[in-house]
Amino acid sequence: MSKPVRFERVLIANRGEIALRIQRACRKLGLETVAVHSEADAESRHVREADVALCIGPPAAARSYLDPDGLLLAAKLTGATAIHPGYGFLSENADFADAVEAAGLTFIGPTGASIRMMGDKITAKRAMRDAGVPCVPGSDGPLPADMEEVHALAREIGFPVIVKASGGGGGRGMRVVQTPDELTQAVTLTAKEAQQAFGNPTLYLERFMQKPRHVEIQVLCDTHGTALWLGARDCSLQRRHQKVLEEAPAPGIEPDTIARIGERCAEACRRIGYRGAGTFEFLYEDGVFAFIEMNTRVQVEHPITEETTGIDIVAEQLRIAQGEALHIRQQDIRQNGHAIECRLNAEDAATFFPSPGTITRWDLPGGPGIRVDTHVVSGYTVQPYYDSLIGKIISHGATRAEAIARLRVALAEMRVEGVSTNIPLHQDLLADPQFQQGGVDIHYLERWLAERTES
Amino acid sequence: MSKPVRFERVLIANRGEIALRIQRACRKLGLETVAVHSEADAESRHVREADVALCIGPPAAARSYLDPDGLLLAAKLTGATAIHPGYGFLSENADFADAVEAAGLTFIGPTGASIRMMGDKITAKRAMRDAGVPCVPGSDGPLPADMEEVHALAREIGFPVIVKASGGGGGRGMRVVQTPDELTQAVTLTAKEAQQAFGNPTLYLERFMQKPRHVEIQVLCDTHGTALWLGARDCSLQRRHQKVLEEAPAPGIEPDTIARIGERCAEACRRIGYRGAGTFEFLYEDGVFAFIEMNTRVQVEHPITEETTGIDIVAEQLRIAQGEALHIRQQDIRQNGHAIECRLNAEDAATFFPSPGTITRWDLPGGPGIRVDTHVVSGYTVQPYYDSLIGKIISHGATRAEAIARLRVALAEMRVEGVSTNIPLHQDLLADPQFQQGGVDIHYLERWLAERTES
Repeated sequence: MSKPVRFERVLIANRGEIALRIQRACRKLGLETVAVHSEADAESRHVREADVALCIGPPAAARSYLDPDGLLLAAKLTGATAIHPGYGFLSENADFADAVEAAGLTFIGPTGASIRMMGDKITAKRAMRDAGVPCVPGSDGPLPADMEEVHALAREIGFPVIVKASGGGGGRGMRVVQTPDELTQAVTLTAKEAQQAFGNPTLYLERFMQKPRHVEIQVLCDTHGTALWLGARDCSLQRRHQKVLEEAPAPGIEPDTIARIGERCAEACRRIGYRGAGTFEFLYEDGVFAFIEMNTRVQVEHPITEETTGIDIVAEQLRIAQGEALHIRQQDIRQNGHAIECRLNAEDAATFFPSPGTITRWDLPGGPGIRVDTHVVSGYTVQPYYDSLIGKIISHGATRAEAIARLRVALAEMRVEGVSTNIPLHQDLLADPQFQQGGVDIHYLERWLAERTES
Repeated sequence: MSKPVRFERVLIANRGEIALRIQRACRKLGLETVAVHSEADAESRHVREADVALCIGPPAAARSYLDPDGLLLAAKLTGATAIHPGYGFLSENADFADAVEAAGLTFIGPTGASIRMMGDKITAKRAMRDAGVPCVPGSDGPLPADMEEVHALAREIGFPVIVKASGGGGGRGMRVVQTPDELTQAVTLTAKEAQQAFGNPTLYLERFMQKPRHVEIQVLCDTHGTALWLGARDCSLQRRHQKVLEEAPAPGIEPDTIARIGERCAEACRRIGYRGAGTFEFLYEDGVFAFIEMNTRVQVEHPITEETTGIDIVAEQLRIAQGEALHIRQQDIRQNGHAIECRLNAEDAATFFPSPGTITRWDLPGGPGIRVDTHVVSGYTVQPYYDSLIGKIISHGATRAEAIARLRVALAEMRVEGVSTNIPLHQDLLADPQFQQGGVDIHYLERWLAERTES
């Protein structure tokens, strides 16, 4: 248990909309902020809004936002006593979390040990299964070197199976195997790729779920033993394992079912002594939840949980890191209505390639139930160096139908000129009868896109 | 009871942010919209967003937005079957409401008779007192011609009193009288002004409350006998009787107290057969509510009620006008958290004079709990012909303190260039300890402004 401290200044080791989001939470709590930025982001809104701003390197992320030493030096130079990593970049880098704490600063997130545990998919799954979180049937550890044993294991689990790299994640380092005769080659190839991509050839095996949904549980844990779950999000609409549109709660799943899995997640957090915000990601099919991974940071899609629960997740991250006890009780957390988030990307509508350039018009939607999280303003230049997310439009309504209707109105109102965006894709998706019915699986969007291309 | 109809197209007889707000509600319900505009508003966002747009006259409102014949002709030409008047302009013009219905169209609002009843302050007060709504002690009708009788009446009511024109409203046609010797002159002058301004010299007298708050009750009534109250708003922060900042619920007033007065308002609506949205305005002092007037239209500050109750007031106006029954029950209406609205005006910070011109930068705030209602985009020209409202920033939080904190962050983020705005005034007000404590009276802002000028 840490004793409450008040941060002098919070350094935000990120850029874009999440840097602005964290600034908003800091300002709400009366905390000063330090913005760091690459040379490419000097004119960014998160830089303009910060109390202090510091350039930490050239455009390449490896030499700026991903440079631990540069960030620690920036904190020292600006008198920051805490670092919020946002999402992406160093947010799930256990060594960085440790280095921050070793420098006498507070890492706004879980301990390096927690991040490390969850970063390795095998140890994460073991820890979660031991803590009572349901997992997909699998190898329960690294694959044996003997290929005969691998085959026996796969037969036991049942085909189709999926071969996964222990160091992978986000859709990288995995391969589906439909029949036994494909298994040897799949294992060999995936091990080789894993060695190249993650420096670690360790693999494991899992039953491959055919048409699951992606359902995740948001948790919030303080350093006084309280762990809360804040409801479920459905993030099944994905393209190449990248989430496109998210909603809360997960349509068609009974609140009681969510409560049971939510309580398991909170209990697991208590067991492993987790602190801060986190997300348990599950595949969900036929009433069965199977743990995939835990994200030990704030998620891009956190606003939909904020809208439905009224809880300011980023402000709670800051309070928890200051050693405060959570002042919310599980029984007081309500799911109020329905919220949907569209991720707006600057990308070509047909090819999905990034579309960097200067945004000459940026007219935002507004009105009832519409929240906009964006770092973009008219005249902003989308840089080619970073991901293509230019904002998030979040709608909230009393019902799912109202949230959909409001989001459609908002997207119809929005005007962006100078870059291409995926707004037309979102508009088409929101108009899709299957989506409107709710509960599509994680492959739905790719099937839908393939059909559009064919027709 | 009218039978449900579905509007082919809705003509929006207004401009600016409220025109856009009504469009959003129409689109949410799948109704087509017709925008009308003066020559000065041809490039406006409400014109751009409409399904059909029609120019109805020159910039002067009297020859465009206030021209009943032009509006009816526009409806005929565009096939609109209903007219939403918004607020201001013809929204409380009983003859216009009658003319719309006589033309076979639906007026989205109460009947002409209801508007007429509430438009005359004396008949409104009588009707409300008869319906059980508490009123301020007063003359209970037009002043007698005999000045001796007026003096006797004033002594009976008790000084200070206020002389009001029956046809007045919005702060015009009224005069406070502290002592008997000022009475005769006040009556003479106010009658003369009332004749000039409203074509009606009829006056009435009321006890003048010293330091009341402005507390109002939002109601919503269908044509099937259901009348709901949606909670209270506190709009005490006014300058020259113009509201500047509003909040919901009214700080420091017990929910039971609000429920009692709310139920009286709903009951009064049932008695007079009121339909649509409306607002009962009260002065509130020492636990006593005194009815001032009823506004028979949507209010500028309706969003704070929408944020706290989750009810889409403008969409409900449309549904009610289509003859639908309200699907909300009084017992299900909750006050969820606290909401505050800042009215942003293009005006000089010191003189409060309008500041028309082209807005060259318009960077909106966003993030959790922030709603923006505005028709302005970068490059928009604020016209000198109409009121200076350029947008509303609405914050919502679990507590009043959170709503204040979020609004302060939002205003700090906002960037407007090209015109002067009252954002600095709002920032100072939100930082004011008395405001933060809550419950200031309707004269507070003017005292506060006077002190600032002196110091």
